[in-house]
Amino acid sequence: MKPTVSIVKIGGAFLETPGLVETFTGAFAAMPGLKVLIHGGGQRATQLSTRLGIEPQMVDGRRITDAAALEVAVMVYGGWANKTLVARLQALGCPALGVSGADADLIRAHKRPVGAIDYGFVGDVEQVNLPALKALLGAGLVPVFCALTHDGKGQMLNTNADTIAAELAIALGAEFESHLFYCFEKEGVLRDVNDPGSVIPVIDPDLYKSLKDGQQIAAGMLPKLHNCFQSLQRGVGRVFIGSPALLSPQRKTFTEVTL
Amino acid sequence: MKPTVSIVKIGGAFLETPGLVETFTGAFAAMPGLKVLIHGGGQRATQLSTRLGIEPQMVDGRRITDAAALEVAVMVYGGWANKTLVARLQALGCPALGVSGADADLIRAHKRPVGAIDYGFVGDVEQVNLPALKALLGAGLVPVFCALTHDGKGQMLNTNADTIAAELAIALGAEFESHLFYCFEKEGVLRDVNDPGSVIPVIDPDLYKSLKDGQQIAAGMLPKLHNCFQSLQRGVGRVFIGSPALLSPQRKTFTEVTL
Repeated sequence: MKPTVSIVKIGGAFLETPGLVETFTGAFAAMPGLKVLIHGGGQRATQLSTRLGIEPQMVDGRRITDAAALEVAVMVYGGWANKTLVARLQALGCPALGVSGADADLIRAHKRPVGAIDYGFVGDVEQVNLPALKALLGAGLVPVFCALTHDGKGQMLNTNADTIAAELAIALGAEFESHLFYCFEKEGVLRDVNDPGSVIPVIDPDLYKSLKDGQQIAAGMLPKLHNCFQSLQRGVGRVFIGSPALLSPQRKTFTEVTL
Repeated sequence: MKPTVSIVKIGGAFLETPGLVETFTGAFAAMPGLKVLIHGGGQRATQLSTRLGIEPQMVDGRRITDAAALEVAVMVYGGWANKTLVARLQALGCPALGVSGADADLIRAHKRPVGAIDYGFVGDVEQVNLPALKALLGAGLVPVFCALTHDGKGQMLNTNADTIAAELAIALGAEFESHLFYCFEKEGVLRDVNDPGSVIPVIDPDLYKSLKDGQQIAAGMLPKLHNCFQSLQRGVGRVFIGSPALLSPQRKTFTEVTL
């Protein structure tokens, strides 16, 4: 039987909310077995940009990562968010090691090709360094990833945290039973966005299609669910969406995504 | 015979100078054997503070690390400086892994006790986690430290980079032949600060005392040399001061500190 590894993604907004960050780090630190954490960005990067007078660059409603935005992302995600999270986890006895995709060449990406839009310093994942990741897990460490990769030629790149979580789970799936957990402020995917009690216990592609056709799912949830199905098709064992309570063995309310 | 490990400290100012950073990373990447890098801060933190309108806090001519200064240090040293250096080294085939003292609990410190001066979030090193450091080296990685530690209770702390280099070399000295290299813009300790050709090949405590008494050494060099003698007394095999050319086996001009 393959050993199990848990890949947990937590939104950056969550980590910036006093009270919630303690709830999350407590739940994550208590999880048994091999585990990996990926944290998103949150509002702090936007706040820092505003304080520095850096205007967000938008093209066709999409955010562009220019050189100034990349510098802010590396400082905030790779520096402040990553290190304060690692220090908190260490205080709870969790042997966290903060990394970006550049560290130990863990995630190599290529700059997104310029098509209709030039996204700037945005990286599409090319390869996860499974031997290096296994070496860190084997040393008893808990890798904590920020949403940054590199191109192997000296350039850091900005990469979506949900995508990084999925790619890590897929790569680990080759040798582990990999379980992917998307944690956010709600208890799961809601049938009615205005009713926190309407958590859907299981979503498969048929239900997804019918909810999508009926426009019953929040728009932001669509790419996330698409990611989840892809992960399952590419070897991830199980995929869950919910609040940090999801990380406890006594978990009750959450959404599981299945094929 | 113990295996040799090289502990290299590079000043932050060096890394911010185009041309010099390539010289340094090339020389470091080419060094054979086990190695560890420690980088200092440089002017970028000061520049960011200025842009953010954060006034440097000084007491009796000494810089204080208040909460705002710590945040800047974690963003700049732990984020931008560390990750861009790691990405550069990776591009040269050097398996760099960027860390702070919080990562893998590598360097635990305590907040400097408040005496005549409250230095703020400044950490005095308590313990280097030798098993974790050995595990990273054993995995074929090259740890790249920024000058940040943690207190084990969730707080990041600012720690002098020269001190971190010395403490790492001392800890590694217990099981390795540890060689400590302080790299900066000059070729070594100068007998005459105005003559770059006046590099002193070997400094022992007697010569140090006579140079100090004759006020022939730059003031900034005194604590550095004091650190070097202490390192040798605490088990470090050899200590060198010089330019990055020092890292090459063909090195010719440099200063070696001996007891």
